[in-house]
Amino acid sequence: MKRSDYETLERYMLDCMTDSAHDSEHIYRVLFVALDIARFEEGVDADVLIAACLLHDIGRREQFENPSLEHALVGAEKARKFLPAQGFDQNFTDRVASCIARHSYRRNDPPSAIEEKILFDADKIDVAGALGIARTLIYAGIVGEPLYSLDPAGNVSRGEAGEPPSFFREYRFKLEKLYDRFFTARGREIAAQRRDAAASFCESLYEEVRTARGSGKALLQDRLE
Amino acid sequence: MKRSDYETLERYMLDCMTDSAHDSEHIYRVLFVALDIARFEEGVDADVLIAACLLHDIGRREQFENPSLEHALVGAEKARKFLPAQGFDQNFTDRVASCIARHSYRRNDPPSAIEEKILFDADKIDVAGALGIARTLIYAGIVGEPLYSLDPAGNVSRGEAGEPPSFFREYRFKLEKLYDRFFTARGREIAAQRRDAAASFCESLYEEVRTARGSGKALLQDRLE
Repeated sequence: MKRSDYETLERYMLDCMTDSAHDSEHIYRVLFVALDIARFEEGVDADVLIAACLLHDIGRREQFENPSLEHALVGAEKARKFLPAQGFDQNFTDRVASCIARHSYRRNDPPSAIEEKILFDADKIDVAGALGIARTLIYAGIVGEPLYSLDPAGNVSRGEAGEPPSFFREYRFKLEKLYDRFFTARGREIAAQRRDAAASFCESLYEEVRTARGSGKALLQDRLE
Repeated sequence: MKRSDYETLERYMLDCMTDSAHDSEHIYRVLFVALDIARFEEGVDADVLIAACLLHDIGRREQFENPSLEHALVGAEKARKFLPAQGFDQNFTDRVASCIARHSYRRNDPPSAIEEKILFDADKIDVAGALGIARTLIYAGIVGEPLYSLDPAGNVSRGEAGEPPSFFREYRFKLEKLYDRFFTARGREIAAQRRDAAASFCESLYEEVRTARGSGKALLQDRLE
């Protein structure tokens, strides 16, 4: 890719960024991991991949402001307008927009082209491991979601189905399950290397809060008359 | 403590809470851990300790809105007004207010009475271990602080002195150092049990982001002309 094209795309990406969990560093990490994965795949169009990585979250702000919108679809639409206006051709625009539209697993439209698969995997790797935990916790802070909820007996819940939103529920229903959902061998390998760090952190966290609550409630009752 | 007094204090505490990192669950955890520590100490006035735990962060909102304020001092002042108005006597009020004023280590006024030491330690335990990491990340989300900063060469920084605020800097200069600063043996013991979980999470996190950035920059340069 021409350096000037890269800079045009990068500038537009930076203009679209707002919050700190999905901030520009996420974009660069996804780009860098995608280029790592691309080394192990055949027939990758590096220009399509680089553009798709840079622009994949340009619809985040719209979804943040209106959660009924899907940032993948908003981002694809924005790319369809932005790229031709900057002189990129229709075929390139279509392929980049398709990568963006298919990078989210909220949608029932899985990646098909190799660049789509690589972007999907690179983006999921950024929610794997310790980094995925850290980004999810930062996001919980931004949207005001709690670390855990309590069950009716006042004990710390692990985030079972049907419970209110919390970090533990997000971990159980999203972060813990993502390791099986990779499309490339290299993507799966990187994610697997990070899996234990996430699991052991969550186990420690649960034990810490469970212990404090578990013994504390009885100690308090002893002190009240 | 009379159950009705406990409920009065609890209600006031809940009225004063705002954000999710220092939310009411933090208060209950500090209370429960304090009662655990109290089992191993002589001459603890449990009523003073319970009231001080419940009220220790009632000045948080004021500090959040105006960072030049110290929440420990604001909270002590609020307690000095609230407690007598609810019929608590002057000696009790003074001792609770003193616990609140001395629970923060931003201040150069260390805890002296045993209830002050226990509150201080219980509050610090809530920043130890995986829980301390989780709460710090949630807080980073609330205030918009990034996970890490980059050094001039574009590599992920570990949070050295003089670098911009980030989670890594907070970890190095606050979380990592708190384990030496306990006043009670039981407090030190609980914190020590949690130390490894925090250290190994931060090491994994650093490795994940360092690796992605380290190899990625070179891969990108190869693709640009």
